[in-house]
Amino acid sequence: MNKAQWIPILVLRVIAMVATFVATLVMVTSHDSAKVLGMTFQAKYNNSPTLKYFVIVSIITTVYSLAALFIPPKKLWRPVLVFDLIVTSFLISSFSAAVGVGQLGKEGNSHAGWLPICGQVPKFCNHVSGALIAGFVAVIIYFILLLYSLNNVLNLVVFKV
Amino acid sequence: MNKAQWIPILVLRVIAMVATFVATLVMVTSHDSAKVLGMTFQAKYNNSPTLKYFVIVSIITTVYSLAALFIPPKKLWRPVLVFDLIVTSFLISSFSAAVGVGQLGKEGNSHAGWLPICGQVPKFCNHVSGALIAGFVAVIIYFILLLYSLNNVLNLVVFKV
Repeated sequence: MNKAQWIPILVLRVIAMVATFVATLVMVTSHDSAKVLGMTFQAKYNNSPTLKYFVIVSIITTVYSLAALFIPPKKLWRPVLVFDLIVTSFLISSFSAAVGVGQLGKEGNSHAGWLPICGQVPKFCNHVSGALIAGFVAVIIYFILLLYSLNNVLNLVVFKV
Repeated sequence: MNKAQWIPILVLRVIAMVATFVATLVMVTSHDSAKVLGMTFQAKYNNSPTLKYFVIVSIITTVYSLAALFIPPKKLWRPVLVFDLIVTSFLISSFSAAVGVGQLGKEGNSHAGWLPICGQVPKFCNHVSGALIAGFVAVIIYFILLLYSLNNVLNLVVFKV
């Protein structure tokens, strides 16, 4: 890859890094409490294994995106491409799982007898929604980065087939 | 890609196709009912938007995997690589979301007041678990297929950088 191809990748990586950093921050600071039938009810991200997984993946992606900015493009583009694929997979995974659980928090599931909780703890739900929006931005940016890197690499393919 | 490189891809695609077909079948046939406090309680996959999403993605992947078997490798490997990437992303997404919701079905979430349902509807839960195992096989196979295709393509790259 040449320099002109490398700059868009740097820009995309910085945007993704900011998005996952914001997602982590907004999710970690999500807490709210409500009194239901005289009992105080605490809502925190770390009460849910799925939201914890979302935070862990967001932190790892932030650190990886920062580290990848300093990798020389000429040498290590092959392992970087594979790592980008792995990071994108985990971003998609943690985002999708968090959306699945977030949807239950918002709508509940009457068949399972699970009541929605967002009416009681709106501040918590707003934070989770904000973190999910930032997470979605990170997913889209990493997907574009992957397609762009692939396109650059595939343009170097000499047809032997 | 030459013929020797194409055969493993065909084999992986057939395995993934069978896995997503089994996942669809096992998930669609998941239903159980229980009487709780005199009320009959029906558990079906289509009571959950997340499990419906899992089934839709499994069906699309089955059809795509079948169709991709008949695509001539010499001509359309570029769009096929991009489609493989998109299909893998949706497989990861639907599998992860279903695991997130399945974990709630099994363990519940005491903080949110959501009780586990697997004790009441074990047949339903066994089917969902079976479908998730098949879904996981499909995710892994598609990921290997993607890495293998990429590796084949990258070996054709002539270093101009």
